[in-house]
Amino acid sequence: MALQLDVVLTKQKKEKPDFGRLGFGQHFTDHMFIMDYNPEKGWYDPRIVPYAPVTLDPAAMVFHYGQAVFEGLKAYRTKDNRILLFRPEKNMQRMNISNDRMSIPPVDEAFLLDALKKLVEIEQDWVPTAPGTSLYIRPFIFSTEPYLGVRASQTYKLLIILSPVGAYYAGGMTPVKIHVENKFVRAVRGGTGNAKTAGNYAASLKAQNEAKDLGYEQVLWMDGVEGKYIEEVGAMNVFFKIKGEVWTPALNGSILDGVTRNSVIHLLRDWGIPVQEKRIAMEEIYQAHLNGELEEAFGTGTAAVISPIGELNWNGNQLCIHEKSVGELTMKLYETLTGIQYGEVEDKYGWTVQVNETVASS
Amino acid sequence: MALQLDVVLTKQKKEKPDFGRLGFGQHFTDHMFIMDYNPEKGWYDPRIVPYAPVTLDPAAMVFHYGQAVFEGLKAYRTKDNRILLFRPEKNMQRMNISNDRMSIPPVDEAFLLDALKKLVEIEQDWVPTAPGTSLYIRPFIFSTEPYLGVRASQTYKLLIILSPVGAYYAGGMTPVKIHVENKFVRAVRGGTGNAKTAGNYAASLKAQNEAKDLGYEQVLWMDGVEGKYIEEVGAMNVFFKIKGEVWTPALNGSILDGVTRNSVIHLLRDWGIPVQEKRIAMEEIYQAHLNGELEEAFGTGTAAVISPIGELNWNGNQLCIHEKSVGELTMKLYETLTGIQYGEVEDKYGWTVQVNETVASS
Ligand SMILES: Cc1ncc(COP(=O)(O)O)c(C=O)c1O
Ligand SMILES: Cc1ncc(COP(=O)(O)O)c(C=O)c1O
Repeated sequence: MALQLDVVLTKQKKEKPDFGRLGFGQHFTDHMFIMDYNPEKGWYDPRIVPYAPVTLDPAAMVFHYGQAVFEGLKAYRTKDNRILLFRPEKNMQRMNISNDRMSIPPVDEAFLLDALKKLVEIEQDWVPTAPGTSLYIRPFIFSTEPYLGVRASQTYKLLIILSPVGAYYAGGMTPVKIHVENKFVRAVRGGTGNAKTAGNYAASLKAQNEAKDLGYEQVLWMDGVEGKYIEEVGAMNVFFKIKGEVWTPALNGSILDGVTRNSVIHLLRDWGIPVQEKRIAMEEIYQAHLNGELEEAFGTGTAAVISPIGELNWNGNQLCIHEKSVGELTMKLYETLTGIQYGEVEDKYGWTVQVNETVASS
Repeated sequence: MALQLDVVLTKQKKEKPDFGRLGFGQHFTDHMFIMDYNPEKGWYDPRIVPYAPVTLDPAAMVFHYGQAVFEGLKAYRTKDNRILLFRPEKNMQRMNISNDRMSIPPVDEAFLLDALKKLVEIEQDWVPTAPGTSLYIRPFIFSTEPYLGVRASQTYKLLIILSPVGAYYAGGMTPVKIHVENKFVRAVRGGTGNAKTAGNYAASLKAQNEAKDLGYEQVLWMDGVEGKYIEEVGAMNVFFKIKGEVWTPALNGSILDGVTRNSVIHLLRDWGIPVQEKRIAMEEIYQAHLNGELEEAFGTGTAAVISPIGELNWNGNQLCIHEKSVGELTMKLYETLTGIQYGEVEDKYGWTVQVNETVASS
């Protein structure tokens, strides 16, 4: 049975925040998408409605057993006022991968993507215009059954909310200082590391806080088995340029399959730069550093796109990278990706999807 | 500043469910405890109010990043109508251990225990009378700040809800069939295994489902590093009796420090039965089984108290334990613990706490 999307527009639009001082994830638009799940109907009642609170029984399973997944992507405004999404079908696919791991029923990816596009189209005035700004899109699912037994919930809600966000590099791109985590673990083989599920983020907070207290912006996570192999940096995938080659940890089940990571690998291959997805010991990076071969390092993710790493602190060793300035390849990747996202660089790969209708322009 | 507990009683009591067919965690009482947290006030506005839904912004962090902890304990009705709690201070302590791991602000344990006792006292009619039944108590905390950045929330809610539950062994105590998990991992050193946090339970569902499909009631979790060492069984701690000694996995950071586990160890020591808390390889259990030395095995937890294990399936080997019947020590522990909980066995250890006032009886 084909789902019918219902649309109820708000009678009272919010006052828009100052688009010059947006920050991240603090302001939300006038509408949201919501649909429900139960075993009889499957996903049902998909609707775009005014942004509104959610009311749940205190026994709703999400509060107790954390069965929840989410996605994150952005809508970008081009100079000619087209609104573009970047590879959104990848987020829909990943949501179903997360659902499978968390025993949440799958969603119809094509339907959900259509609903998402419709919502962004309705909210297009909320896509900010200043360089580097965008509209952050957060689809998420959580369990709602009021029941305290430990098993998968029988009911769920899926929402999409939208948040206009400021430029990540408002003050220019600056490399970050990273603490190589040697105490806490984010994920392990057989766990939930390759799912975008709530508990992974809760599990990461204490390490982040302790790294901050030591003066570092993020942590570099090591594998949960041996504590030797590099996994991710904060909530980003990680890349290293060594002697002209680029290395990134292979998708081993405990790493998130990032859309930005995938796009970076594509670009590098297209540019003829050798890329290896493999198991990378922190020791190898340290040795490359000692030999003067560690040329660049950066994280990749939807929020920052590319985040240059200027320093790694590993068991008391300070590895200073590219003299703490942004590397050439790092910058080229950033400019190419954001160029495609904002419609300023030709989209050879068919990565962007236009959401709104524009009068023929340019 | 001392917190003042506010009490607002319901005007319309619910109809009580059939106490003969309660099940677990499906029915909730007339009132709940709730308090809020913000950085300025700390925990504030503690109140007992009519059981009611919670209203949250869709951006509330719990839905996205799963910062949430909980506890579980029970109130038992004695024959002379005293209402007893079992070592509730241990649950308060453990909640703060979980809070610390999950970057949630600590609670005042003594205050919270008083509030919990008051709530149970108000709801004492909801403590069922039939043998083996009880009132399950669920304190829990979740993050509420409407913000999508990954960091600890600035605001939280703490609730206590109550649910009358049926006898776990309504049809008599029957040993369970357990699948030794060799694919999925519940927790790992450096992770959140010793915190009672939502994400741990979400992470366990897929393994449980796959075990059920194979005809097993629960999984026996192995360590996340080597996959060799025994951790817990389902959401219970686990014990093995081998040649007259009792072994249980040591608290290594990835195992929950169960109140029942702790009580079982106390009882065994008191009875002069040697107990070892140590690292236990599944291979050792298998060898003991082959040598005819594996005498009994059981899980421990608030819900079942003691759950005898009749069969372990390990990589295709079926270990049948105590001819799939309940072992003597298993039964003695069950009878002693439940005896103390229901006020029928002398409480030598000062484990029970009376909640209600009773006219002098017996
Ligand atoms: C843990 C983690 N790793 C990596 C990423 C990067 O993924 P993407 O490039 O799809 O944003 C994210 C999400 O942003 C993440 O949460
Ligand atoms: C993962 C896990 N292990 C063990 C236990 C047993 O702890 P307790 O005896 O305190 O109920 C529980 C909770 O019931 C649990 O959730």
